[in-house]
Amino acid sequence: MSAPKILIIGAGYGGVVSALNLQKTLHYNEAQITLVNNNDYHYITTELHQPAAGTMHHDRARVNIKELIDSKKVHFIKDTVVEIKTEEQKVVLQNEEVEYDYLIVGLGSEPETFGIKGLKEYAFGIRNINSVRHIKQHIEYHFAKFRNEPERTDYLTFVVGGAGFTGIEFLGELADRIPKLCKEYDVDPKLVKLYNVEASPTVLPGFDPELVNYAVDILEKKGVEFKLNVPIQECTEDGVILGTGEEIKSATVVWTGGVRGNSLVEAAGIEAMRGRVKVDEYLKAPGHENIFIVGDCALIINEEINRPYPPTAQIAMQQGANVAYNLAAMIRNQPRLMRAFKPEIKGTVASLGNGEAIGVVGNMKLTGPIAALMKKVIDLRYLFIIGGIPLVLRKGRF
Amino acid sequence: MSAPKILIIGAGYGGVVSALNLQKTLHYNEAQITLVNNNDYHYITTELHQPAAGTMHHDRARVNIKELIDSKKVHFIKDTVVEIKTEEQKVVLQNEEVEYDYLIVGLGSEPETFGIKGLKEYAFGIRNINSVRHIKQHIEYHFAKFRNEPERTDYLTFVVGGAGFTGIEFLGELADRIPKLCKEYDVDPKLVKLYNVEASPTVLPGFDPELVNYAVDILEKKGVEFKLNVPIQECTEDGVILGTGEEIKSATVVWTGGVRGNSLVEAAGIEAMRGRVKVDEYLKAPGHENIFIVGDCALIINEEINRPYPPTAQIAMQQGANVAYNLAAMIRNQPRLMRAFKPEIKGTVASLGNGEAIGVVGNMKLTGPIAALMKKVIDLRYLFIIGGIPLVLRKGRF
Repeated sequence: MSAPKILIIGAGYGGVVSALNLQKTLHYNEAQITLVNNNDYHYITTELHQPAAGTMHHDRARVNIKELIDSKKVHFIKDTVVEIKTEEQKVVLQNEEVEYDYLIVGLGSEPETFGIKGLKEYAFGIRNINSVRHIKQHIEYHFAKFRNEPERTDYLTFVVGGAGFTGIEFLGELADRIPKLCKEYDVDPKLVKLYNVEASPTVLPGFDPELVNYAVDILEKKGVEFKLNVPIQECTEDGVILGTGEEIKSATVVWTGGVRGNSLVEAAGIEAMRGRVKVDEYLKAPGHENIFIVGDCALIINEEINRPYPPTAQIAMQQGANVAYNLAAMIRNQPRLMRAFKPEIKGTVASLGNGEAIGVVGNMKLTGPIAALMKKVIDLRYLFIIGGIPLVLRKGRF
Repeated sequence: MSAPKILIIGAGYGGVVSALNLQKTLHYNEAQITLVNNNDYHYITTELHQPAAGTMHHDRARVNIKELIDSKKVHFIKDTVVEIKTEEQKVVLQNEEVEYDYLIVGLGSEPETFGIKGLKEYAFGIRNINSVRHIKQHIEYHFAKFRNEPERTDYLTFVVGGAGFTGIEFLGELADRIPKLCKEYDVDPKLVKLYNVEASPTVLPGFDPELVNYAVDILEKKGVEFKLNVPIQECTEDGVILGTGEEIKSATVVWTGGVRGNSLVEAAGIEAMRGRVKVDEYLKAPGHENIFIVGDCALIINEEINRPYPPTAQIAMQQGANVAYNLAAMIRNQPRLMRAFKPEIKGTVASLGNGEAIGVVGNMKLTGPIAALMKKVIDLRYLFIIGGIPLVLRKGRF
């Protein structure tokens, strides 16, 4: 009998940690492990707001997959997933088909636009290396263009839709970068406008109100104007139209208002809500004993508040580790060793730009430089988990 | 009797050298010298191809005017010239009017599009700091965009119209930069196309054919495709249509095919051909004993070949020095000291990118690293002339 085939699709937090833990746990003759990803690098989603704003080079937010995995134990295929065929136990890629006995789905999210007209066509998303490189260049390009079309103040007007983690962290970085851009392009800083538009009444939902006020205060001091309790009604070529009827003319609208799971999951006939699968205690898809879901496509209810956990890097990594552990137990025919997945929320820190952040670690509320330091520690810890000390030294920011 | 008012409009090569020589020659009570420029900096036009391609920061190609002139001797006004009123002996600026007894016109050139449709609307020009910053960002922006629209190979296609100095030097730099851009944006270098389209049968007209062949050979090896003897018939939003009917789809068309003098000169009623004034031996405009023309607006015939000298930095600087000398003689009522202007062509070097150039210095033909070194010496010499050793150290590239 040949070794079972484990196929991991997607090299995000969940997929990469699954692969790393499987290669550590299993002997080379216990399973054939394959990892598929559409890029030959893994990117650090929680840091993408920085290259998007241009405060960090995008290469610091990505790691070559071949540097992470042991090629003798994990076979890597750079290709794009087209379809998951659960009955035939295979995954169709653009260039080949790959069979599996066990499948780990870590395909990540897609933007959720809630049907708001024009967002898909005209708004940017902070989604991956390609999109943040595009945003960064778009911003610089419009500063450069402005000098030749000084009536176009919309070139210097930036609208961020959504006041969740990504939106707020991006605004913090962008506000830091504006003075440098003004200097570089000889632009009067008073002409630059930063707006945050959010349909709900508060920024960073789920955070303690005291911390939220701190964050709003810091960002307002950096020049961000908040429009809370105001939905974006439409995004156009010229900017956004708000629910109040007000139009903000802007050449750069960044939508960070929501994500959903991957549509390939629904297309595969796996039961899902907006691409997210309500997995069982072992992260298995309902009705599919050999399919595990990790990361943004997995839906887990926080029973304390009877609402889903938000899709975070922290939980995705824990899921990757859990799936690897349970898969090893299954393959070794030791099902009684399997452990139910239980998220362990160690802390949450949101950056507000250079030297500023808010966060909750354990029971402590943190603000300012201490919170910013904690954010760095979390980032470095992640690099350590996936790549050890060498990766920390190479990509870490101190 | 109050000291005569000397007004210099334009702080290009001719204007700056006029101002510097006047402040050196004249005592503070001999004249009131005013310099007007639309920016508070002087830029080094002969280096603009580098920031345009992104191989040098634009700040290295400009110098703050207040660092060059002695504010006690030369009054600087940052403003834009709107009209020259020769009868009233005053110049109308956007914000004020300035009277003069002597006027030095160094307003520089405007692009000459020879009536080619669409060039004004859709093509870039390597003209000033604002325009080259725009070109640089435009190029990077389209590399970044390409990753999200991989069918748009026109984003990676660059057309330079004109094979004179500026076009060829820009292509040399751009070709050097392409591999770096490909690395930065994960783009396959084979997808990038560089075209040079020139209506006349040769590049760099006026250069020795042996040197021209060397230049073409170097640039072809760097990936430039030449289309000589082919005019651009039309420039559109999508690229260019050539005289042969061929269309090159390109998001970036840079027109370097010609310049003319400044239209304000014609508007002032000064006799000119395409904005260039056929000046007398003392660089005075015909019929205007108190108006001197320097730089791109001055037309001087090279009697050896009975054709105008090309408008170069070298000649503009010599004109600036000559006008300053003659003006001092006039003001001191020593007309017999006045000297006729005679250009002295010390040499001409065209850069072909990093470490490569062609040139003629005296009777010597130079190619390769020696020519490139000579180009650097010429650039440094200019910095020395206008700003002495401190400027050489601050802006020079070694």
